[in-house]
Amino acid sequence: MSDKLFGTSGIRGGIRDKVNTDLGMSLGRALGTTLKGTGKVGIGTDARTSRVMLKNAFTAGLLSTGIDIIDLGFTPMPAVASHSTFDDIDVSVIITASHNPPGDNGFKFFKEGREFIRSEEASLENAITNGEFVIADWSSIGEISKYDIYETYMNHALKFLEVRGSKGDNMSVLVDLANGAAVPYTPSLLTRLNFSVTTINAHPDGYFPGRFAEPSPQNLEDTMQIAKNSDFALTICHDGDGDRLAVIDEEGKFIDQNRIIALFARDEIRRKGEGLVVVSIDTSSVIDEVVKAEGGQVIRAPLGSLQEVFSKRAKEVVFSSEPWKPIFSDLGWWMDGIVGAARLAQMVHEEGNSSCLELMKSIPEYPMLREHIKCPDKYKSQFMSNIREIIENEITNIDQVIDVDGIRVERTDGSYVLIRVSGTEPKARVYIGAKNESTLEKLANHAREIMKSSLDKALES
Amino acid sequence: MSDKLFGTSGIRGGIRDKVNTDLGMSLGRALGTTLKGTGKVGIGTDARTSRVMLKNAFTAGLLSTGIDIIDLGFTPMPAVASHSTFDDIDVSVIITASHNPPGDNGFKFFKEGREFIRSEEASLENAITNGEFVIADWSSIGEISKYDIYETYMNHALKFLEVRGSKGDNMSVLVDLANGAAVPYTPSLLTRLNFSVTTINAHPDGYFPGRFAEPSPQNLEDTMQIAKNSDFALTICHDGDGDRLAVIDEEGKFIDQNRIIALFARDEIRRKGEGLVVVSIDTSSVIDEVVKAEGGQVIRAPLGSLQEVFSKRAKEVVFSSEPWKPIFSDLGWWMDGIVGAARLAQMVHEEGNSSCLELMKSIPEYPMLREHIKCPDKYKSQFMSNIREIIENEITNIDQVIDVDGIRVERTDGSYVLIRVSGTEPKARVYIGAKNESTLEKLANHAREIMKSSLDKALES
Amino acid sequence: MSDKLFGTSGIRGGIRDKVNTDLGMSLGRALGTTLKGTGKVGIGTDARTSRVMLKNAFTAGLLSTGIDIIDLGFTPMPAVASHSTFDDIDVSVIITASHNPPGDNGFKFFKEGREFIRSEEASLENAITNGEFVIADWSSIGEISKYDIYETYMNHALKFLEVRGSKGDNMSVLVDLANGAAVPYTPSLLTRLNFSVTTINAHPDGYFPGRFAEPSPQNLEDTMQIAKNSDFALTICHDGDGDRLAVIDEEGKFIDQNRIIALFARDEIRRKGEGLVVVSIDTSSVIDEVVKAEGGQVIRAPLGSLQEVFSKRAKEVVFSSEPWKPIFSDLGWWMDGIVGAARLAQMVHEEGNSSCLELMKSIPEYPMLREHIKCPDKYKSQFMSNIREIIENEITNIDQVIDVDGIRVERTDGSYVLIRVSGTEPKARVYIGAKNESTLEKLANHAREIMKSSLDKALES
Amino acid sequence: MSDKLFGTSGIRGGIRDKVNTDLGMSLGRALGTTLKGTGKVGIGTDARTSRVMLKNAFTAGLLSTGIDIIDLGFTPMPAVASHSTFDDIDVSVIITASHNPPGDNGFKFFKEGREFIRSEEASLENAITNGEFVIADWSSIGEISKYDIYETYMNHALKFLEVRGSKGDNMSVLVDLANGAAVPYTPSLLTRLNFSVTTINAHPDGYFPGRFAEPSPQNLEDTMQIAKNSDFALTICHDGDGDRLAVIDEEGKFIDQNRIIALFARDEIRRKGEGLVVVSIDTSSVIDEVVKAEGGQVIRAPLGSLQEVFSKRAKEVVFSSEPWKPIFSDLGWWMDGIVGAARLAQMVHEEGNSSCLELMKSIPEYPMLREHIKCPDKYKSQFMSNIREIIENEITNIDQVIDVDGIRVERTDGSYVLIRVSGTEPKARVYIGAKNESTLEKLANHAREIMKSSLDKALES
Repeated sequence: MSDKLFGTSGIRGGIRDKVNTDLGMSLGRALGTTLKGTGKVGIGTDARTSRVMLKNAFTAGLLSTGIDIIDLGFTPMPAVASHSTFDDIDVSVIITASHNPPGDNGFKFFKEGREFIRSEEASLENAITNGEFVIADWSSIGEISKYDIYETYMNHALKFLEVRGSKGDNMSVLVDLANGAAVPYTPSLLTRLNFSVTTINAHPDGYFPGRFAEPSPQNLEDTMQIAKNSDFALTICHDGDGDRLAVIDEEGKFIDQNRIIALFARDEIRRKGEGLVVVSIDTSSVIDEVVKAEGGQVIRAPLGSLQEVFSKRAKEVVFSSEPWKPIFSDLGWWMDGIVGAARLAQMVHEEGNSSCLELMKSIPEYPMLREHIKCPDKYKSQFMSNIREIIENEITNIDQVIDVDGIRVERTDGSYVLIRVSGTEPKARVYIGAKNESTLEKLANHAREIMKSSLDKALES
Repeated sequence: MSDKLFGTSGIRGGIRDKVNTDLGMSLGRALGTTLKGTGKVGIGTDARTSRVMLKNAFTAGLLSTGIDIIDLGFTPMPAVASHSTFDDIDVSVIITASHNPPGDNGFKFFKEGREFIRSEEASLENAITNGEFVIADWSSIGEISKYDIYETYMNHALKFLEVRGSKGDNMSVLVDLANGAAVPYTPSLLTRLNFSVTTINAHPDGYFPGRFAEPSPQNLEDTMQIAKNSDFALTICHDGDGDRLAVIDEEGKFIDQNRIIALFARDEIRRKGEGLVVVSIDTSSVIDEVVKAEGGQVIRAPLGSLQEVFSKRAKEVVFSSEPWKPIFSDLGWWMDGIVGAARLAQMVHEEGNSSCLELMKSIPEYPMLREHIKCPDKYKSQFMSNIREIIENEITNIDQVIDVDGIRVERTDGSYVLIRVSGTEPKARVYIGAKNESTLEKLANHAREIMKSSLDKALES
Repeated sequence: MSDKLFGTSGIRGGIRDKVNTDLGMSLGRALGTTLKGTGKVGIGTDARTSRVMLKNAFTAGLLSTGIDIIDLGFTPMPAVASHSTFDDIDVSVIITASHNPPGDNGFKFFKEGREFIRSEEASLENAITNGEFVIADWSSIGEISKYDIYETYMNHALKFLEVRGSKGDNMSVLVDLANGAAVPYTPSLLTRLNFSVTTINAHPDGYFPGRFAEPSPQNLEDTMQIAKNSDFALTICHDGDGDRLAVIDEEGKFIDQNRIIALFARDEIRRKGEGLVVVSIDTSSVIDEVVKAEGGQVIRAPLGSLQEVFSKRAKEVVFSSEPWKPIFSDLGWWMDGIVGAARLAQMVHEEGNSSCLELMKSIPEYPMLREHIKCPDKYKSQFMSNIREIIENEITNIDQVIDVDGIRVERTDGSYVLIRVSGTEPKARVYIGAKNESTLEKLANHAREIMKSSLDKALES
Repeated sequence: MSDKLFGTSGIRGGIRDKVNTDLGMSLGRALGTTLKGTGKVGIGTDARTSRVMLKNAFTAGLLSTGIDIIDLGFTPMPAVASHSTFDDIDVSVIITASHNPPGDNGFKFFKEGREFIRSEEASLENAITNGEFVIADWSSIGEISKYDIYETYMNHALKFLEVRGSKGDNMSVLVDLANGAAVPYTPSLLTRLNFSVTTINAHPDGYFPGRFAEPSPQNLEDTMQIAKNSDFALTICHDGDGDRLAVIDEEGKFIDQNRIIALFARDEIRRKGEGLVVVSIDTSSVIDEVVKAEGGQVIRAPLGSLQEVFSKRAKEVVFSSEPWKPIFSDLGWWMDGIVGAARLAQMVHEEGNSSCLELMKSIPEYPMLREHIKCPDKYKSQFMSNIREIIENEITNIDQVIDVDGIRVERTDGSYVLIRVSGTEPKARVYIGAKNESTLEKLANHAREIMKSSLDKALES
C-alpha cells in the first residue's frame, strides 16, 4: 500500500480508510526515522474535524523517534511552508486535504519552503514499508513546544508586498475564505495594506457549511452572485488551506486561472527583466506570450512536480504556478494564495485603477477546451505510447513537443494540444488552446481523432 | 464627572477623552471597593483595538482591591452576562461600546444575568467620586484565572432552543457578524441545530472593515443586496457584541424591529398561556395587539431600564425587549441576539415553511413614523412640562397615558404618540404609530402642532 | 499479550517494550470502544519524559472512536481521580508509572473516584485482544478541551481538612516531592493551612534527579539526614504521582507505614464511632488493635484490590489503605498522599503538640519481619496448595485464617503470619508480626520450616 | 517624588505606598513616551503576589502610548535581560524586588542586555514628573503577544558553557531556589550539563515560605546545615529573581563573595590573556591579586553603576561583578546567577576534582571587616568631605585612592580601606581588607579614629 501513499499533492484520502490514526502514527515514525531521530518538525492544520486526532497520532509517532515538535496550531499552508525555512527547522507539515470533502484529510510535507520532492516522499514510503523505525530511549524522547507564526509570516509577506506596490486607499475587496485556515490571514494582510475588506465564509468550520472548499466556478455561484450585485473592486476566493486563489471581477465573472498566472508571471519578470517561469503542463500558452514579451522564459513541469525544478534550478526561477497556486520566488518556494490575493489587490488598485476588469484587459483571453474520454487503467500505457507514435505526424506547424507528463504539442501560432492520462481516474484528457475559435475547433477535431484511433489500437492489442 | 458616567446602556465614550486607562483602573478599584475587596469578577471583551489596554487597566484596579478575576477573553455580551449567573461569580463585565464607532469603548456590568440597575451604577459612581478605594495587603491581592465559557453557554442555549423547536434540515441562513464578538457563537449554534450557515464579515476585527457595527438599514445595504440576490431563507445581522439582532427576509427587505419583538413575545406567551411582556417606551402597539391576543400583558419601561423591572417583578416577566435586543426569561435576564437568531431560524423553518416572509405574514405591519425637532438642552424640561399640560386635551380617544420616559399617549384604536427629549442630543423626538396611513397622517400633524407650540412656549419663558 | 496488561495497580512497563505508542493508541481505542464512542474522558500525566508521547497516542485513539477529551495536563493522581467524580465525566486516566524507574510509564483508570475494578480492566483487555474498535465518522470525531483542576481539587481538599483540624500556626514542615506531580499541590495545601513549608526535589523533572521516585527508606537517606539535622516538626515524602505518603519524624526516623495507616484509620473511626476499615493483606495487626479500640472493624483485601470492596460495600467503609496510600471515604475513593500529608500535619500540630514523635507515641510499635525464598513460577501453585494443607495444623492459637491473597493466619495474641507468592517475581514471601521479639522469633522459625517443607514437596511432585 | 524613583538597582518599594498600580501605569506611560509611542517592550516577573497586578497596570500604560508588548511571563532576571538583546526589542523589564520582603516589588529596565544607565532612568523620572504622555489613537494602540524565552535562553547559556567546560559526570549539586523565578532554569541547565541536581525551595511561591529571598549566611542556615550533613559537591543558592548566586562548600561553609568573583574573573581573563575586570567599590583586593596574576586589570565602579562602564568601554571589559552578581561579557551585559551556577559547577568538577573546597584553595582567603557608625543624613556630605581631607595623610604606603563612590584607599601591601555613606540609611560604612589579621587590626583602629574625628567635626560644624 505504502508505495502509493503520495499523490500529486501530498497524501490525501478518507479518514476511515486511508488517512487514519494508524497512518498518522506511521508517518510520524517514518519521518522521524528518515531524520535519524533528531531535529525539529513543525505541524499545522486546517479546520477539518479530524485535525486534532491526526495531529495527535502523527505527533506520538514523531516524538517516539526523538524528534522535537513545534505545534503551529490552526495555520494556513503558506504559513506552515514558510516555517520550514527557519534555521532550526528540518521539516514542516500541514495536515490538510486542501479542497477535498470534509471526510477526507491528508499530509503535506515542506522542506526549506518547498514541497517534498519525489525522492523525499519515497524515503517516507520506504520507511513505512520496511516498518523499521528509530525508537528513542526514554531520555531522548522528543518534546513539544508551541509557536504562533502569524506575525512572522505577516511581516515577511508585508516586506514582499511593500516593495511591489503601495497602499490600497480603502479599495473595497470581498474575500471568500471557505471557512478555512486563511481566515485570520488574508483579511488582516489586506487591512494592513489599507484595503477595505468584507469577508464571507470567514468563521473556521470543519463542516465547510458555506460552500465546498474547492474554489471552482460551480462552488462559487453564490459568491459570484454577490460580487455581481455588490460594489467590490475585486473578489478573492480561497480553498480550505489557503494555497489557492480564485478571482472574480466586479461584474461577478470568474477569471480563468491561466490569465491570473500570466499576470503574476509578467509582474515578476518585469521587475527582473528576465528569468524563468515554471508552470504545470496543463496551463495555456497565454502565459508564454505574456512572459516572452517581457524577456522571460517559460518551462512546463508535470502536475504536482514544480518543486523538482526548484531543487535544481532555484536561482533562475522567478515565478511558478499551477492553476490557482502562485509561487513567488522572492517570497519562498511555496504556493501562496494569501500573498497572491494581496499582490493582486495591489495591482487592481494601481494598474487597474481599482477595477479588476480594467487590469485584466492587459492579459489576452483566448478560447480553450478541456475534454476527456474513457480509458481503462490497463490500456493507459499502450494508449499513450500510440499517441506518442502518431501525434507528431498528424499535427502541423509544430514548434516544440513536451513529454514530461503526457504529450504536449505546441504550434508556431501559439495553439497547443496536451494529451495525458489521469493519475486517479480511468480517463484520458485533452487540453487544447488557440488564439481563435476556428483554430481551436480544427485542433479539437484532430485531437479527438488521434485519441480515438490510439485508444482503438490499444484496445485491440 | 463621575456622576455622569453611566448612560442608558452602561458606560461608553472615546478612548482618549473618557473611557481611557485612568477610567478603567478607577472602575476596577470602584467595583472592588463596592464588593469590599472580596469575590470574583468575570471580564470579557469584544474585538475593539482598545480591548486589551482597558482590560489590563481594569484588571489592575480590581486586583489591587483583592478581587479575583476570571478572564473570559474575546466573548459576546450574552455569554458574559450568562457568566454572572454562576454560583461563585459576583459580577461579570464586558468591555464593549456595542455599535459605537471603533474609537469608542465602554463597560457594561452584569449581576445574576441582568445589567446593573441604577442603584448599583450609582455605587460605582460614588466610589469614584469619593476616591477612597479598598487596597489589599500583599498577601490578599487578587489572582487571575482564565475560563472559556463557550461550551457552557452553547449548551445552555441549546437546552433553551431544543424545547422550543426542532432541527433545521439544512435550511440556508446568512449571518452578518459585523466582525464582532458573536463570531464563533451564532454560526456554530445554528450549525448544531442543523441549519446551513453562510457568514459575512465573520473575521473578528476591531477596525470593523466590513460595515459599521450598528445593524441599521443604512449600514446593511450590502447585506440586504446579498440577501436579495442569493438564496437564503433568512438573514441575521449582529452588532459588535452580539446583543443585537436585525433581520432581513429572503427578498432583501429589512424587517421592522417591532414585528420581531412581537414575534418573540407571542412565541413565549403562547408557551405559558399568560405573563408579562416588558418593552421599552419607543416600541409600537403591534406588540400589544399580538401579545394580548395570546393572553399576555404588555408594560413599557424607560429606555435602558428594563432591568429595573426584572429586579422587582422577575416571576411575572416572560419576555422583554428593546428594539433589536430580545430577553428570554427562561434563558436569563440578558439581551441575547445570538439565541434570538437561532430561535428565529427555528420559527422560519417550522412556522414559516422555510420562508421568512411567510412567517412574518402572521405579524401585522402598520405604518409608523419617527421625527425630531431641535430642542436645546436648557429648554427640555419646560418643553416636556408644556407637552404634559396640553397633550391629554389635544388628543382624543385616549386609552392610557404612560409617562415613565417622556409622554406616550395610547388611543383606543391602537394608534399612539410618544414624545420625549433625547438624553444625548439637543433634540425632542416623536414616535407615532397607527393602523392605517390616514390616521397616522392626522396624528402626525397633530403631534407636530403640539410640539411646536410647546417649544414656542418654552422658548418664550 | 493483552490478557496480562493490568497488574496490581494499573498498567506499567518499559516505554520501548510494553507501554509504547502502539499500546497507548490501542488503549485509547479500547476505552472508547467500551464507552461505545460517546462520552468524556479526562487525561492527566506525571512528569515522566514519555508523558506527552503517550498522551498523544492515547488521545488519538480515543478521539478516533468519538470520545471527547479533557486534557488535565501535569496533575497528580489524586486530582485526576477526583476528576472522574465530575457529573459529565465517564472515566479519568493518569499516565504514570508511580514510583517505577524513569524509563517506565503506565496507565491508571478511574471511574467515580475509584480505580477500575477487575471486570472493567478485563473489558479493555478484551477490546484490545479482539481488535474491533468503534471508529467515528468524520462528523463525530471527538474534540479536546483543557481543564485546570487545581482550584477545584484544592477547595475539595480544604473542605475535608477544615472540618477535621485547625490552622498550622506556622509549624514547620519539610516536603520531599520526588520531582513529581504533587509539586504545586502539597506545598500550597499546607501553606493555605498556615503551615510553614520547605520543599526539596520540588522542580518537576522526568529524570527524577533528586532521588528514585519510590519513597522507601533506602531512597530517602538524604532526606532523613536533612530531617535529622534541621528543625522540621514533620517531613513528608511523596512518590512521582502523589498517591503515596512516607513520613519521617523530627529525629530523622522513617515511620513504619502500618502505624501511619493505624493513625489515619483511628482518626476516621473516631469521628464516626464505628465503621469498616479496609486494608491490604500485607498490613500488620497494629491497625486492628487501634481500630477495634475505637469501635471499628478491619477487613483485608488482596493487594491492588481495595476498589473491589468499595464497589460493593461503599456505605460501610470509612477508611482504607495500602501501605503508603491512604483512602479517605469522606474525600473520595482514591489514594491520596496529598490530603494525607495535610491531615497528618494537622494531627502533628494539634495532637502531637507540633512533634511527630509525640503524636506517634499513641500508636504502638511492634516487631515485624518480611522475608522471601526462591520459588519458580511453575511450582507456585503446588507450593501454596501445600501451605494451605499444613499451616492450620502447624500454627497454634489461631483466631482466623484469611485466604483472599495467599494465606494469612491471625493468632489470638495479635501475632500473624502471611505467606504468599509474588505476582511478578519467582519468589514466595512471608510477612510476620508479633507483640514481642520472642514470639516473632518463634513464629518466624516455624514459618520458615513450613515454607521449606511445602517447597520441597512441591519440587518433588 | 519621581526624582527619587530609582535606587542603586532599579525601582523598589512597598506595593501599597510606592510601587502600586498608579506607579505601574505611570511607568508604562513614561517608558512608552520616551520611546515615542513606537516599538516593543518585553515584560517578565518573579513569583511575588503582586506580580500580575503590577504587570497589568504597567501594560495598560504602555499599550496606551502605542507600544507593543511581549509578555515573557514568570521568568528570571537574566532571561528577561537577555530578551532585551533581541533585534526587534527596544527594552525589556522585569517586575521584581529581587531579595526584598514579599510585600515589596519593583521594576528593573534593560536595554541591549544591560541595566538602564542613569540618563535613561532620568528620562523616565522626567516623563513622570512632567505628566505629559504620548497617547495613541485607537488605530495605533499597542498589542500583546506572548513569548516563552526559556529555550532561547537555555541554548544561549549552553553555548557559552560548552566552550568553557565539559559535562558533569553526575556530580551531585544542591540548588536552593528561594521559591523564586530561577526554578525551571538552574536545575534544568545543570541537568543538561549532566550534573545530578537536588533542589530545595523549588516550588515558586510569592510567600517565600522556605526562607527570606536574600541569599545571605543568616538566611541560609538551614541550607548550610543540609550541605554539611549531606553529600553534595557544591551547593548553590539564588535570590528571588536569579541574578544572585551564593555558594556553600561540601562542608557547609558559606564562601565569601569576593573569592567567587575572583574565581570567575580569573577564569575569563585566562581565556583571553588580558582584559578589564569591573567590580563594585565594596569588593576586596583578592580580586586584584588574582586578576593581575593572569594579565588582567581591575577597575572599581560605584555600587549599582557597572552598566555606566559598559556603555563606554564595552570592548575591553571581560568580566564584571557586584557581590553575588556575576556578569560574563561573552554571554551578555547582565548579572547572571544561573549561568554563574553552571559555570561554577563545571569548575568544581574539572578544576576541583568534584570538590568545591579543593577548587577554592586556589583563591586566597584574607581577613576582612565591615562596620558602620551612625551618621545622620544631613551630616553625610560634611562627613565625607572631612574624610577626604584627612585620610590620605593618615594612611601610609598608599598605592592609589579611588573616589568614585566614597573614598577607597588601596595600599601597596594589598590592604585597603573604603569609607562611604549609605544611600538608604543614616549610616557611614567602612570596609577593610588585609593579608593578615595584624594589619587588618591596625588598619581598622586607624579607620575608626578617622571616622570618629570626621564625624565629630561634621557634628560641630
